[in-house]
Amino acid sequence: MSTSVISPAELADSLRTLRAQTPLVQCLTNIVAAQWTANVLLAAGAAPAMVDNPEEAGVFAGVSSGVLVNTGTPYKETYDAMRVASAAAHSAGTPWVLDPVAAGGLPVRTAFAVEVLANRPMIIRGNASEISGLSGGAGGRGADSTAAPQEVLDLAHELARSTGAVVAVSGAVDHITDGERLVRIHNGHEVMTRVTGVGCSLGGLMAGFAGVSEPLLAASAATALICVAADNAVATSQGPGSFAAALLDQLALVTPEELEEKVRLS
Amino acid sequence: MSTSVISPAELADSLRTLRAQTPLVQCLTNIVAAQWTANVLLAAGAAPAMVDNPEEAGVFAGVSSGVLVNTGTPYKETYDAMRVASAAAHSAGTPWVLDPVAAGGLPVRTAFAVEVLANRPMIIRGNASEISGLSGGAGGRGADSTAAPQEVLDLAHELARSTGAVVAVSGAVDHITDGERLVRIHNGHEVMTRVTGVGCSLGGLMAGFAGVSEPLLAASAATALICVAADNAVATSQGPGSFAAALLDQLALVTPEELEEKVRLS
Amino acid sequence: MSTSVISPAELADSLRTLRAQTPLVQCLTNIVAAQWTANVLLAAGAAPAMVDNPEEAGVFAGVSSGVLVNTGTPYKETYDAMRVASAAAHSAGTPWVLDPVAAGGLPVRTAFAVEVLANRPMIIRGNASEISGLSGGAGGRGADSTAAPQEVLDLAHELARSTGAVVAVSGAVDHITDGERLVRIHNGHEVMTRVTGVGCSLGGLMAGFAGVSEPLLAASAATALICVAADNAVATSQGPGSFAAALLDQLALVTPEELEEKVRLS
Repeated sequence: MSTSVISPAELADSLRTLRAQTPLVQCLTNIVAAQWTANVLLAAGAAPAMVDNPEEAGVFAGVSSGVLVNTGTPYKETYDAMRVASAAAHSAGTPWVLDPVAAGGLPVRTAFAVEVLANRPMIIRGNASEISGLSGGAGGRGADSTAAPQEVLDLAHELARSTGAVVAVSGAVDHITDGERLVRIHNGHEVMTRVTGVGCSLGGLMAGFAGVSEPLLAASAATALICVAADNAVATSQGPGSFAAALLDQLALVTPEELEEKVRLS
Repeated sequence: MSTSVISPAELADSLRTLRAQTPLVQCLTNIVAAQWTANVLLAAGAAPAMVDNPEEAGVFAGVSSGVLVNTGTPYKETYDAMRVASAAAHSAGTPWVLDPVAAGGLPVRTAFAVEVLANRPMIIRGNASEISGLSGGAGGRGADSTAAPQEVLDLAHELARSTGAVVAVSGAVDHITDGERLVRIHNGHEVMTRVTGVGCSLGGLMAGFAGVSEPLLAASAATALICVAADNAVATSQGPGSFAAALLDQLALVTPEELEEKVRLS
Repeated sequence: MSTSVISPAELADSLRTLRAQTPLVQCLTNIVAAQWTANVLLAAGAAPAMVDNPEEAGVFAGVSSGVLVNTGTPYKETYDAMRVASAAAHSAGTPWVLDPVAAGGLPVRTAFAVEVLANRPMIIRGNASEISGLSGGAGGRGADSTAAPQEVLDLAHELARSTGAVVAVSGAVDHITDGERLVRIHNGHEVMTRVTGVGCSLGGLMAGFAGVSEPLLAASAATALICVAADNAVATSQGPGSFAAALLDQLALVTPEELEEKVRLS
């Protein structure tokens, strides 16, 4: 695994820095995942703040360490807030993450996601269908992917090159690319898809890590942390309910040393 | 219990089909129960999607297997989305479930619930006060019922006959009727009322089962599954917090065979 | 500890009354904490109802036992609902609690919180930065406090005297004052800050207790209950996820006698 472009030690350092600095993460996300995303960020060591109204979203993006824009349940007012926040983040140099939930499957939000690409997200995170949909291809079924990351790898590389963003495609094996370099993470477990908002919260974690590390490392560290935490949590849980609680525990308990030891990169 | 109009074996078959087909369930629900409802559906084996804005709700209702309309925290935009989704579901033949939260107690949402009856829900689900309220009678206290299902049974039968919907009244004993046939389910536990959104999520489950079974069976299978899962969960929990996690576990763990064996019908 | 202006026995009596009367608590709160707040109220023994739209909020405030107004994720429509609900509560004599989330840090919501002071909240609850911000001082970092309760004690006393409200400042030691008398509660644990919405739910609990006890006792009983429950929950949990579940369990399990025995007042 020595061939990976990012080393386990770099991931561990990024987690160390996150916990030392507690980055402030502004989340503009959906009503389903808002609580879970805040709890994931708190457990991992970041400070979430859900400022998602148009009057305050821009000011706050200027003082945040990272911003998440997630299109899970968009309304007129939160669309406006996402526009304002992403523009303000771009102006202020605050890294922001775009999670284009259900892009490709629903034309209105696909168009919105394409529109805010102009505000230059540092990371674009989605499942294979969403990355395909954002690139003009077919979408998935609701929020679920109907494809695997490796099937959209060419689209992901192309999207990264055309937008300048790191593109992170989640799935059984997570694929993360900046258009040239590719990081694959082999941890994680199928039960993660049986708890709502795990993917959404990963976008929040990426925004937190982007406040302390460069984008490719940030997206990789966030993914590695939640996947290693999930590996641990599966071992002590009986089903999706106890798994969700154990996952939050593990996000707080996994040490940088443990992350370095357990992450499986290629 | 051999006199029941639905057999335990039919309930087991319905669960088998749900897990085999993973129906896509569009949920237009409240900010309190959205996450919990998604987790209940995922645990049971369905695929939730919370598409609740007016621009996308109609298109999505056309491709969903079932739709939930729940009036827990309605706003102007979500009311519009519920109108669009229920009309589109009716046009497309997608089964949809109406959960008229707090009907009878609050005139605005009572009027809304009565209005969308024109879009022919396949199942109407509520507690006794809500079913009474929707029928023009007295409502309850907030989202809580001040009556028991058996007290509103005549109203439920009448509502079923006048709307063509199956009417499911939750309580210590759940009562489900299509206007002629009556299914009573005797499982479940009082602690279910100490976790917010359990009733709301039952409406979501019914929408999922309605995607794979006829309405009376769908409403019964959803109720039986969550009540048997609750019976199991109570045995391993200390209070409402650990019960909630155990309930999600059990929704995934209960097998069709176990459901058939443990359900108590009359 | 015999010098405290409120006795442990009075706190126990307040909890006894809450559980006997199950006060109906209307919550106008944020999308992050709505589910958690409802679950905290249900576990403790109150009846939550999230009626937060402008058309229904006023009527409902008139029939509720207590009302919570929390500015965590305000939108145009929920701001309107909060105005209507707080005015109606004032008119009807329903006690209401103001939780001015992020006041001081964000001008729009600070102005709103100052505006609704005219509707005479019975309790104002916040962290030290929010109490400072509401008093015209500096705010915190997002929803997090950058000060300790004792640092803003003069401001809290002054705010209590100028508004007629009890002011409750949460922190490592909770400080609660009516402008003359001061109650300090020394229970609780740092992990409470690693679960989102614990502070928000405390505001909801205060609204519930205010339905059965006078404001200084209500704010103290709510704080004591959640802090003693947290002390118990920490003992059986591994991290923030299992702690959250255990906290809900303990809110239901802690008896009035246990509360009286374990609370540490000064």
